[in-house]
Amino acid sequence: MTIRVVAKNQVKPDKIQEYMDLCKNLVEESLKEEGCIEYGLYQELENPGILTILEEWKDKNSLDEHLNSNHFKEIFPLLSEYLEKETEIDIYKKKL
Amino acid sequence: MTIRVVAKNQVKPDKIQEYMDLCKNLVEESLKEEGCIEYGLYQELENPGILTILEEWKDKNSLDEHLNSNHFKEIFPLLSEYLEKETEIDIYKKKL
Repeated sequence: MTIRVVAKNQVKPDKIQEYMDLCKNLVEESLKEEGCIEYGLYQELENPGILTILEEWKDKNSLDEHLNSNHFKEIFPLLSEYLEKETEIDIYKKKL
Repeated sequence: MTIRVVAKNQVKPDKIQEYMDLCKNLVEESLKEEGCIEYGLYQELENPGILTILEEWKDKNSLDEHLNSNHFKEIFPLLSEYLEKETEIDIYKKKL
């Protein structure tokens, strides 16, 4: 069964463009991973500072490999600098 | 551009099965809607009381039609009875 991830970020209002610029490389490299089905950055319609990564991975092992990848370990800490608060990460399995 | 919805629910611990049972009809009917690309119920791996609906709609108009559908208007208020707090709904457009 595939794994879905919702990683929700509240970005500082004056850092939205920088956050998106820095995300570009993370998205591109993550999409190249063997177990990656989906990896995209999404902006909330009414709250432009809410920038969420929606992900789908082949299985839990693929997600673990992603979290250990060089691109994730390099870029994720840099992205954290632009946040109002810590990223809220939920990892899901499908029920219905 | 399609629209993505993340509707996150914190369900009362003793109501998880009833919540899922009641969701079944909502998921089935929503998937039949013309503008529906995805509509599924997902459970967080470490917090089984977090039950989130992940949705994708053809456009904002399709989402509005869904929110006005009989199945949504009938079932959504019933589901709310089982929640610890109000559903957290984020509506997204793709940026990257």
